[in-house]
Amino acid sequence: MTSKASSPFNRALERLVPRVDRALDRLLPRATQEPRTLHRAVRYSVFAGGKRLRPALCLLACESVGGRVGDAVPSAAALEMIHTFSLIHDDLPGMDDDDWRRGRRSNHVVFGEGTAILAGDALLNLAFQTLARAPLGRIRDPRVLWETVGDATGTNGMIGGQALDLLYEGKRVSLARVLAMHRRKTGALLRASLRLGALIGGASPARLRAFHAYGERIGLAFQITDDLLNVRASRRQTGKSVGSDRRKGKATAASRGGVAASERLAARLLAEAHALTPRLGRREAEFASLTETLLHRTR
Amino acid sequence: MTSKASSPFNRALERLVPRVDRALDRLLPRATQEPRTLHRAVRYSVFAGGKRLRPALCLLACESVGGRVGDAVPSAAALEMIHTFSLIHDDLPGMDDDDWRRGRRSNHVVFGEGTAILAGDALLNLAFQTLARAPLGRIRDPRVLWETVGDATGTNGMIGGQALDLLYEGKRVSLARVLAMHRRKTGALLRASLRLGALIGGASPARLRAFHAYGERIGLAFQITDDLLNVRASRRQTGKSVGSDRRKGKATAASRGGVAASERLAARLLAEAHALTPRLGRREAEFASLTETLLHRTR
Repeated sequence: MTSKASSPFNRALERLVPRVDRALDRLLPRATQEPRTLHRAVRYSVFAGGKRLRPALCLLACESVGGRVGDAVPSAAALEMIHTFSLIHDDLPGMDDDDWRRGRRSNHVVFGEGTAILAGDALLNLAFQTLARAPLGRIRDPRVLWETVGDATGTNGMIGGQALDLLYEGKRVSLARVLAMHRRKTGALLRASLRLGALIGGASPARLRAFHAYGERIGLAFQITDDLLNVRASRRQTGKSVGSDRRKGKATAASRGGVAASERLAARLLAEAHALTPRLGRREAEFASLTETLLHRTR
Repeated sequence: MTSKASSPFNRALERLVPRVDRALDRLLPRATQEPRTLHRAVRYSVFAGGKRLRPALCLLACESVGGRVGDAVPSAAALEMIHTFSLIHDDLPGMDDDDWRRGRRSNHVVFGEGTAILAGDALLNLAFQTLARAPLGRIRDPRVLWETVGDATGTNGMIGGQALDLLYEGKRVSLARVLAMHRRKTGALLRASLRLGALIGGASPARLRAFHAYGERIGLAFQITDDLLNVRASRRQTGKSVGSDRRKGKATAASRGGVAASERLAARLLAEAHALTPRLGRREAEFASLTETLLHRTR
């Protein structure tokens, strides 16, 4: 998301991200509230320059099917809390052991391991507290919110994907398994973000299926291009240590299938996603523009 | 909870705990399901001989106000998941660094730190997934379930209490602050367990207030007696390392107010709790018996 400041997707980000940021600021406990260190740690990682991709997808999906974006803002903020929880825990010494994140010191480097673990726990819990108080838009049963997010986050989704990622480190793993791991680790929450927004906006079952198919492809392509960046780019570009995946023997599409094959796979997934955008409703142009932005990243 | 196998509270445990254990077995992912290490780690700590105090309080409160115990079983299981999540994370090297729990090796000692962090995360998430699918009994709006549990678990409750516990280690802290920390760390979830069961059972506002007052007192007394056991008992009795709180400079009522004063405080709280039991409904005898069991622990 580095280029083309004037693309439809980037204009949508400029319009929507401030609403997400204001909601996060309102929903997170003040840094002056006890325990202050914990609340400072939570805010440090939530306001660390994240792109807000998941909340943006949620809000765009809601708008795209004719819903009111305001109805989806608290749920979108909850998705960013879950994403941030996963980043804090993934960076811990007992997990990926990364000292840098988005060009800043990782949470545990600044606040210590104990507080970083608790800051992640607090964000996961706060996400569900937020969903318990969020507007429902056109959803009738509030339990749909929790099930959608809980399933994407749990051992069949993000948390399970991270466990597989740990397990595969330094092992010979097929490309198919790497992709199945990415589907859980990154794909599940991206798909849930679209689904949640679409549900709040009142999407038809056919529209929900189109969002699912689109989310499946951009989720996978996003992770593949992220891994390609780790292979090639400088820390200035990614905010992380260059080549850290390789040093750790991380199972990535690039390491298991080769860089060129990864690029081709990402391009194919993004072309498929692009072809789906006419079925996504009013924000078709923004969703098409996102696939182009991601394609640009692979080059 | 070591003595008087025939007390009303212990007979209630014998009757109710198997239902909780069966629900946990049904609700937790199979150990044969991928990622297997993660699911084995989750089950290792959930089935490690816990007393199931929180689920038992939830089910007794439901029965006590005339509710159907079956309606409260999944919610009771969710409470045990949250309790187990907190134990796994508290034992981590970056937190309390305990290698033993309930007489067995801690989760991270057996499965490694990364998996232990994820097992805790998975249990917190699964608790909310469970609450999203739990029967409501006499609750009308399912969001009441989530708010009750989310508030007790978050930075105003258990997670915030653990952050204060870390912060107070090795520091001079007043007894009042120690008690305020215990109210969050242990008290909040115990109170929420009673409240949840009472709500599912259809308790009146007056009954809910009585449960709150009773839970407040047994929660605090429970933590004080737990800390006294850590000072005096053998590992065989507690399943943890003896005197570990003292070695770490943990802020406890015993360390900040003295052992004798702690015993008196616990006895006073339990006497107050006992006096409240006639207002708790049909399971008055069981709730009274619990206060006696806890009182026995202080001696």
